[in-house]
Amino acid sequence: MKFIHTADWHLGKLVHGVYMTADQREVLNQFVDVVREEEPDAVVIAGDLYDRSVPPTDAVELLDEILFKINVEAKTPIVAIAGNHDSAERLSFGSSWYKHSQFYLSGKLANCFEPVRINGVNFYLLPYAEPGVVRELLGDDSIHSHHDAMKALIGRIEETINPNEPNVLVGHAFVLGGQTSDSERVLSVGGSGCVGAELFAPFSYTALGHLHSPDAIRHETVKYSGSLLKYSFSEATQNKSISIIEIDQSGNFTHRYRSLTPKHDMRELVGFIDQLLDPQFYEKERTDDYLKITLLDEGALIDPINKLRQVYPNVLHLERKIDVLNLKKKQSFNAIRAEKKSEIELFEQFYTEMTTSAFTSEKKAVMAEMIEKVLKGEAAVK
Amino acid sequence: MKFIHTADWHLGKLVHGVYMTADQREVLNQFVDVVREEEPDAVVIAGDLYDRSVPPTDAVELLDEILFKINVEAKTPIVAIAGNHDSAERLSFGSSWYKHSQFYLSGKLANCFEPVRINGVNFYLLPYAEPGVVRELLGDDSIHSHHDAMKALIGRIEETINPNEPNVLVGHAFVLGGQTSDSERVLSVGGSGCVGAELFAPFSYTALGHLHSPDAIRHETVKYSGSLLKYSFSEATQNKSISIIEIDQSGNFTHRYRSLTPKHDMRELVGFIDQLLDPQFYEKERTDDYLKITLLDEGALIDPINKLRQVYPNVLHLERKIDVLNLKKKQSFNAIRAEKKSEIELFEQFYTEMTTSAFTSEKKAVMAEMIEKVLKGEAAVK
Repeated sequence: MKFIHTADWHLGKLVHGVYMTADQREVLNQFVDVVREEEPDAVVIAGDLYDRSVPPTDAVELLDEILFKINVEAKTPIVAIAGNHDSAERLSFGSSWYKHSQFYLSGKLANCFEPVRINGVNFYLLPYAEPGVVRELLGDDSIHSHHDAMKALIGRIEETINPNEPNVLVGHAFVLGGQTSDSERVLSVGGSGCVGAELFAPFSYTALGHLHSPDAIRHETVKYSGSLLKYSFSEATQNKSISIIEIDQSGNFTHRYRSLTPKHDMRELVGFIDQLLDPQFYEKERTDDYLKITLLDEGALIDPINKLRQVYPNVLHLERKIDVLNLKKKQSFNAIRAEKKSEIELFEQFYTEMTTSAFTSEKKAVMAEMIEKVLKGEAAVK
Repeated sequence: MKFIHTADWHLGKLVHGVYMTADQREVLNQFVDVVREEEPDAVVIAGDLYDRSVPPTDAVELLDEILFKINVEAKTPIVAIAGNHDSAERLSFGSSWYKHSQFYLSGKLANCFEPVRINGVNFYLLPYAEPGVVRELLGDDSIHSHHDAMKALIGRIEETINPNEPNVLVGHAFVLGGQTSDSERVLSVGGSGCVGAELFAPFSYTALGHLHSPDAIRHETVKYSGSLLKYSFSEATQNKSISIIEIDQSGNFTHRYRSLTPKHDMRELVGFIDQLLDPQFYEKERTDDYLKITLLDEGALIDPINKLRQVYPNVLHLERKIDVLNLKKKQSFNAIRAEKKSEIELFEQFYTEMTTSAFTSEKKAVMAEMIEKVLKGEAAVK
């Protein structure tokens, strides 16, 4: 039995003010091609289909379109759960109708003890839920943390599980040992969001969502698929892929990755502005990637972001690498004030730093007049 | 062939700050009972299933539950369109999956020229769309009003319609001659929102949504079902019902109403407060209805809303009937000022009007001291 494990699509995601929808559409269409090629018995999506409880309408349309291609057109069963970014109620509207075509979408925990059986494999669906919700569902006041909640839920599953069959848990949690990145919303403060990997021992394979790297945990049977795309610069060096699992009737499985090629990679560039704007450098670069650029230049630069965007249209973030030790030696703003330079002297200094042309006496006269007007409280510009 | 025509459910509606969800659940469960009893060949819902594009999650769950009971449990086909309150994109997520069980949900105009055929009747689904959307869809720059848009759409339908079969149009529009109420959102300003009833001549029956009264239009074949519940006090005297249509193969139909009993009626009470609070009066009343109360009393009343709510817990709106002519004879606030009464005299007058106890010299001393402090700008209360 073969299934694809993916998670954390985050449709509707906004990264540094840019909607990722076009990139998501591109890579999801590649995903559909992989499904057609691999012909798995199921596609497992382990939560965070959307980036937020009320996603933008084009994200809603994209999810509808992609799931339709997989489930109806390619006739592939889908097993999906809500993650912490999804609204359980909104996501699961209509899910009763989806079952007839073997699209199993679980928003709320309600039926989590009854597995979905596909081609000899039992899938247990545990959508994301707050510990308080699990406490109420199970009537167990001792549940306070995500670990407690997962332990109690799996305990209940164990009451009826058939250990002689392959059992797969589909969950959305921060499993201990996982490495976080900036685009995963923290589940809880103070470590109580963590869940011990040992809890998943009853399952042949645990298909997790939440952490965005497939390398977030090193465990024999407990795996993250990683997110669909890089969603923050802290993920710039992560591998993004989907997992192809082939599991036999004893629960033994093989595991391999397939990567999808994003329309734009997300990565960091570090250098001096002249170097980055040198055609000899950028001709070898994929200049339309989503970039975080860190400039090593010291001193003032005129409008560096727009200069860079002429070459790299998708600069999302620009930083200056400031040499803190060196900076301390320089004059601070207060130090300059202490010298009691006049306004015109301060402007001359600024002008000289910012341009390569001379601050002529003509220019000086214009500025002096301007400054005088401003100091008198008159309108500087008429 | 028998179908039920309903519209304007407005799930998630908030009336004077009160969510109608419990009332909607009650009456929709009655609706499900009627469906089970009547066993129609289809249920037609002519738009405004939700009250807004992003409805509260309990409204989402309620709609899911009710449609499931009708379509899956009672095995009744559903034909539904988006109204101006619905989000076409959000509402139609998953609609591709619903068709297999004959649940036809149309959010966008896309496939409106292809009828849904149920038991010998062709249903043409025209979800609500702005004139600009229709202009773009049809590539017809002459479309500026809702009337133009409807005319063009029906013109296109006429190209392929079979006039020898019964044809039903399902639409959401303000058809000319319709009476508006306060809870219908105005489609357009200046009359351009109106659509002429004559446009619907090609159809045996036109099942409309938008106006909340089944009496909003008097027309042989063009009908509003009216809303599920009264959603504003301007609808207090309207009949609320659902329409049961039986149509033959020539397109001739019979039409009857069935009313549902709301948990709370919405109505107006007018009277003097003492009369309304008299058990002899209210014992005959359904005191938990949603009420707009208009008090006829003159002069000051102490906290009338809370007194009334002890008897009528669901007072949503309280008005005083002010006799304008009489008021003019009375002293206005400015007139009182003109008399140059002192602050303590004004307070004494207020105190005497508001209470039945005497404004003793002791009380007067306390107030005088207080007023003096306030006038001096000191903190009045320590």
